[in-house]
Amino acid sequence: MKLWLEADGKLVMSDYRVRLLEAIAETGSLAKAAESMRLSYRRAWGKLKELEENLGYPLVESASGGESGGGSSLTDAALSFIVAYRRFQDRVTADMDRAFEEELSQIGPQARPSQ
Amino acid sequence: MKLWLEADGKLVMSDYRVRLLEAIAETGSLAKAAESMRLSYRRAWGKLKELEENLGYPLVESASGGESGGGSSLTDAALSFIVAYRRFQDRVTADMDRAFEEELSQIGPQARPSQ
Repeated sequence: MKLWLEADGKLVMSDYRVRLLEAIAETGSLAKAAESMRLSYRRAWGKLKELEENLGYPLVESASGGESGGGSSLTDAALSFIVAYRRFQDRVTADMDRAFEEELSQIGPQARPSQ
Repeated sequence: MKLWLEADGKLVMSDYRVRLLEAIAETGSLAKAAESMRLSYRRAWGKLKELEENLGYPLVESASGGESGGGSSLTDAALSFIVAYRRFQDRVTADMDRAFEEELSQIGPQARPSQ
């Protein structure tokens, strides 16, 4: 399964992007977060800006000291969003496992016709 | 959400492929099924053979009259599989809608910080 969220047809969150935001929260730096995900700074920054533009509000704020000096942290709105997205993702994953177990585990690859 | 099934890391069903199989069942012909999905016969045939190889059993059988003469129908194993896959898919979709409603509908794009 691949999971993502759109609003008005525009991407506003995905499994990949929630990891990027969490990495920013953990490292306090977009540069370090990008590195931890083996993304270029430029690509990480682009993904972040795309989400912010599609959402219409900021996800990351820079501390005083300037872009390179003061580090980055998530806004309260971003924190609320990623916590809720993780709950959503966990539920969908657990529900899918249950549905698979009940609907498909006895069929499909296992249910080879005897011959 | 994008949903698919793998067995031993190999694709054995997807939302797209289940539609192809259903189209074969409806039209009685791989050629007509391909056409209805705007796929070339070659690509539709390739997708079908890939699934059969990954599953290890046949999904489609040709009626007497030869490949082009007698038409194609789904095997019993394929019918059981697509019915179960559709039940699985319907449940996952309904569960996801519920999880979204309960975890995310009050947050995210709607939850713009007041400013």
